[in-house]
Order: sequence, then structure tokens, then C-alpha cells
Amino acid sequence: MLEKIESLMHTFVNEVDPLATELYAKVPKGKRLRAKLVMKIAPEAQENIKLAAIIELIHAASLLHDDVIDEAVTRRGIASLNATHGSKTAVMLGDILYSKAFSELSDFSPFIAKTVSDAVSKLSAGELLDVAYSEALQLDEAKYFDMIYKKTAVLIEATASSAAALAGKDTKAFGLYGKNLGLAFQIIDDVLDIVSDEATLGKPALADFKEGKTTLPYIYLYQSLSEQDRKRLISLYRKALEEDEANWLKEKMAESGAVEKSVSYARTLGYEALDAIAHEKNDDLEKVITDMIEREY
Amino acid sequence: MLEKIESLMHTFVNEVDPLATELYAKVPKGKRLRAKLVMKIAPEAQENIKLAAIIELIHAASLLHDDVIDEAVTRRGIASLNATHGSKTAVMLGDILYSKAFSELSDFSPFIAKTVSDAVSKLSAGELLDVAYSEALQLDEAKYFDMIYKKTAVLIEATASSAAALAGKDTKAFGLYGKNLGLAFQIIDDVLDIVSDEATLGKPALADFKEGKTTLPYIYLYQSLSEQDRKRLISLYRKALEEDEANWLKEKMAESGAVEKSVSYARTLGYEALDAIAHEKNDDLEKVITDMIEREY
Repeated sequence: MLEKIESLMHTFVNEVDPLATELYAKVPKGKRLRAKLVMKIAPEAQENIKLAAIIELIHAASLLHDDVIDEAVTRRGIASLNATHGSKTAVMLGDILYSKAFSELSDFSPFIAKTVSDAVSKLSAGELLDVAYSEALQLDEAKYFDMIYKKTAVLIEATASSAAALAGKDTKAFGLYGKNLGLAFQIIDDVLDIVSDEATLGKPALADFKEGKTTLPYIYLYQSLSEQDRKRLISLYRKALEEDEANWLKEKMAESGAVEKSVSYARTLGYEALDAIAHEKNDDLEKVITDMIEREY
Repeated sequence: MLEKIESLMHTFVNEVDPLATELYAKVPKGKRLRAKLVMKIAPEAQENIKLAAIIELIHAASLLHDDVIDEAVTRRGIASLNATHGSKTAVMLGDILYSKAFSELSDFSPFIAKTVSDAVSKLSAGELLDVAYSEALQLDEAKYFDMIYKKTAVLIEATASSAAALAGKDTKAFGLYGKNLGLAFQIIDDVLDIVSDEATLGKPALADFKEGKTTLPYIYLYQSLSEQDRKRLISLYRKALEEDEANWLKEKMAESGAVEKSVSYARTLGYEALDAIAHEKNDDLEKVITDMIEREY
């Protein structure tokens, strides 16, 4: 099934221009989580392959532009397109993937077209917030949740609710499932940056804080610290940490329980997601969540 | 009427995020030719202001990304956003304008949504072709026309035909009018780069060839040259010209009649545009073309 989706994505890009196909071949494919989500929610619906291909093109476009904006040199462990072919190329290819996706999206119902295109509008706002919030320590929980909702969860929410619409299922329930899944995964991703090592992550540990991202565990940590320790935490923001500094940070994280609190919040979101689709009896979708909830962090 | 369009564009951007509004305020407004075209074709149609605002957001987004791709330091005589705020910011704001435009576009009929989004897909392919064709002398007329169609004419064509759809008028006739208007204007723009001086253009004359753009007059010129002169022309490609080289180029242009041939082709396109909408008796639209045809170059 994924092969059919890959093949349609390729066809779409080639319809824009064969030159675009050459560039597109250099983009790593990723796990196609959003495509799989469409197929799990709407396995029998007409046009499910097409919806999955459109959403994956949008996701790929957003990653291409993210990497330009973040000046990222790697993506999924290999050199990013902006690093190998320049940011100009990554901007152009991203525009091609976005615009072709929107063009194909206009064949769907107004609900689906609006849901997905609205999500992209929020996604681009999320990127703006991410950059703005990286300029200084951002300790506001509400702002953090708004940002990860827009940057990560909104497209998963739109994927789930548009797939539900295609299958004639409950769009609100699946939308809530998708939203919580996206939020929970982002929180877990932020936690892994702290508790995993470089070998597991494929990137340096504690990279987020150095890059200016004040994620949920740091927000919880700050809340629990003494005035003096808060000052020390602030002094480490956006800094390449010495070994003793990294150790201090990990110790304080352990003492504060900030990581556990973050994981616990992600699990709560996961339970809500399970609740939302309980009446659907969809084992595959439930397993996605229970795997996350039951894992040790 | 234009004020209402500006105001709606502002509202749209603000709905994405107030942070985006701050950036948007720094983007020069331009002449809003596409908005005016919508209002001339569909002056009484419902939602004409909204369609005009959407198309101008798309045009603004494409210019923001164009300037990043071309590394342009000025736009409409003032510093470009990528020059003052970095290309990251220009990429993000462009994404916001594009995605909000597509999200609003999904409220229109499938014909309008498809026409405009298809145009954006071709527009982004046009930018790719423009960059690819600037890597070496590009002497193929068909490729030149395909590129300027995608880069310039396709959005004007989509503007005219979607405005016609809104007004219940002949979408094919207005589409042809828009297409030819866009092609002719681009050819005239390419001619002005050769025949005007820096004071009139607001940028150095003969800039296109230096930047790698082989425009129609150069293609016609090459066709008329001796083998020896062709070699000299090739040697000047992408080069900052000495005074004697610029003079030689202008002399050869004058001898060859390449500029007149280009203008004449633009006029032919203009007459076809007039033909296409002759039955509409729309004085405003006819004047746009006759002004172009009757002017001296």
C-alpha cells in the first residue's frame, strides 16, 4: 500500500516538472507516519491513497523549509537538501511540493480541503513561533503547547480528521485522537533529547536547549528550582555545555522529576486519545498509543 | 475598492498570527495589478474582494520566495525582506501567505480553487526553470515561452479566468486574455531591460543577460548573428560588461532588429488578447492592452 502512495507522490512531482523529480529523488522518504494513519483510519475509502500522498507531500515540503529556516545540516541522519544543494533549491522544491499538494487537494470535499489547508496555515505559523520563542528562554507552558500544537500536532490532527471524513467516520473523534497523538509524540521527543544518548538519538543529547528550544521538561524544571539554580539554568541557555554543566543539568532534572512529569502529561494525552476513539474498536490505532504509554522513558 | 482588499489581506495575515502581521507590514505593497484585474472582470460579483486578496497574497508570497532564490537585495526599489530580515524570515512569511491563501481559497468553487492552485504549482515550476535556464545560455524559444508562461503569465491567466467564473462570464476567453497579457508584459519587461537606462528602470540596464537570463531579444539576436559574433555574444554571457562591450551589444541589437521583433511579437499577443474579449465590450480591459500596443519602445 505504501508503494502505491510513494508512486503517486512521484507522479505528482513529475507532473509539475521532470526537473523537480530529480531533486525530489534526493529527499529521504521518512517513516510516512501520516500516510499510515490515513490508511489505518480509512482503509477502504476511495481516494485514500491520494489523500495520503497529498499529506506526505505537505509534510515533506514543511521539512524542507524547516531545514532552511533552522539551517539544519542533517535530516534523518543524512545531509539535508539545503546543505547539499543550497537553501534556494530546498525553498523551490518545498514550494513545488506544497503547491502541487494544494492543487490536488482541491479535488476533495470542501471539508477535507479546508481542514488540510487550514492545518498548513497553522503549521507555518508554528514555525514562526518556534523561531520567535528560540530568541529567549520561553517559560510559558501555554505558549509551548500552542507552538507544538501548530508545529507538530495540527497536521496529524488534520490527517486523522480528513481520513475520517473520507471514510464517513466521526471527524471530531479522530481529530482529537490525532491532535493528542501529535502533542504526546512531541513531548516524548522533547523528553528523549534529555534522557537518551547520542548513539540512540542520532544527534547530540541535550541539543534542544542549546538550540534555544525551551521544551516542557525545562519549563517544569525551572518551576521547581531555587532562585539561584534558576539563574544557573538561564546561564546555560543556548550554550555548548561543559561536562560538569551537562551533569548538573541532568542531576537537577532527576531531582525535580520534570521528565517524569512531562512523560506523565504525554500519557494523559494518550489516554484521552484512546477515549476519543474507544467506540471505533480500531486495534491498530489503539496500539500506536499504548506502545507510547507503556514504554519506559 | 483597493483599500478593502488591502484590509482583508491584513486580516487574513493577522488570523494566522499577529507576529506574521508585523513582518507583513514590512513588505512593499506593489501595484496590485492582479487585484485590479479581478475587479475589472468581476466588478459586481460576490466575493470578488476575497478572491483579489487571495491572489495578491499568493503573488506576494511568490515574490518573497523569488527574492530568496535569486538572492535579490532590492524589491520595488527598496531593500527586500530577505536582505533586511534574512532569508529564513522571508521563507516563513511566504509560507504563511501561501498557506493562508490556499486555506481561504477552499471556500470557492472547485473550478476556482483548482484554477488558482494549479497556477501556483506551475508558478513554482517556473521558478525552477528560471534557475535551471540561467546556468547556461538558453537559446530555445519554446523553452523561453514555457518559462515566462509559468513564471509570469500563468497566475494572471488564472486571475482572469477565476474572476470570470465568479462573474458567470466566459472563463476561456478571459483566461486567454490574461495569459496573453502576462506573456506580452514579460516580453516588454525583457525589452525594457535592453532599451531603457538605469534611471528609468530603477536597476542597471542590460542586467538580465549578466544575471544569466537569456530573454527573447537575445534569442532573436543570436539567430541573426554570424558565427564570429555568436562567439562574442556567448563570451559576454553572465559578465559585467565594459563600456565597449555594452556598446557592441547595443549596436548588434539595433542592427539585428531583435528588439523590434520582440515588441512586434508582444503586440501580436496583445491583439489576440483583444480578440479574445472583443465580445465583452470591456473598455478598461481593452485599454490595458492598447496602452501597451501603442506605446513606443
